[in-house]
Amino acid sequence: MAMKNQMDKDIKYMKEAIKEAKKAYLIGEIPVGAIIVYKDKIIARGYNKRETNNQAIDHAEIIAIKKASKRLNSWRLDDCTLYITLEPCVMCSGAIIQSRIPKVMYGAYDNRFGCHKSITNLFDIKFNHNVLINGGLLEEECSSLIKSFFKELREKKN
Amino acid sequence: MAMKNQMDKDIKYMKEAIKEAKKAYLIGEIPVGAIIVYKDKIIARGYNKRETNNQAIDHAEIIAIKKASKRLNSWRLDDCTLYITLEPCVMCSGAIIQSRIPKVMYGAYDNRFGCHKSITNLFDIKFNHNVLINGGLLEEECSSLIKSFFKELREKKN
Repeated sequence: MAMKNQMDKDIKYMKEAIKEAKKAYLIGEIPVGAIIVYKDKIIARGYNKRETNNQAIDHAEIIAIKKASKRLNSWRLDDCTLYITLEPCVMCSGAIIQSRIPKVMYGAYDNRFGCHKSITNLFDIKFNHNVLINGGLLEEECSSLIKSFFKELREKKN
Repeated sequence: MAMKNQMDKDIKYMKEAIKEAKKAYLIGEIPVGAIIVYKDKIIARGYNKRETNNQAIDHAEIIAIKKASKRLNSWRLDDCTLYITLEPCVMCSGAIIQSRIPKVMYGAYDNRFGCHKSITNLFDIKFNHNVLINGGLLEEECSSLIKSFFKELREKKN
């Protein structure tokens, strides 16, 4: 029962991350969204703004992590869970480890940059912090957003 | 001759990164500094502000990368060189790759978090961007700063 409840919650929160990804889509950014949950409450939201802000740093996860740290007034996000629509890249995997996030759930796999299952597994390296990380949550919905984004982009170019 | 000139320049710029690291030291942060050079000019400086800003993201490199992107109005730092006093961690290695920095020089090796020579080599993974990265420039000076910082910290605790 507890497990089912957790799964319902995970789905609910991933849907919120997908809402964020859609905001990125609407402004022409690769649609990736992230939210951070603390004590069963969403405390931070973020979506990819690399092009909009002209900052390679401004991935959805980084934006959400910065907001959560501001909100909790701490760089340690000890009791937080991060929901991301896409498998994290090198930079974001590092930001997760640096900010001590204990649990991460993501949707789609990223066979170009994903650093949990796709290209390498950075979460297997023995740093001073271990992350419980799982992919594939609402995978279809998360990945189809990205696929239609790139399809539309290619059609515009033609 | 050209090689000697480049080496002189590298040393000059690393000394500037060390100046940044010293600013971190003075405010009680682990002393790591970074600068970014574009067309033989320093366009961005940064030093570790994790504790001060309560942001795990705010490593010297990230701060410098953000400033450089703002300065050049581009997330692509194509023709830039990054000088760092310490081997980059996972997050900063990812930020270097994401922002397409082609050349990185660093000073001290980091046997706890370093992601070029010490723990792993993330720059060996075939992403869409290759980085020319070298460590050991003014290594002694860069690492002795960090060693005295931690020595002082331990003494204060006793």
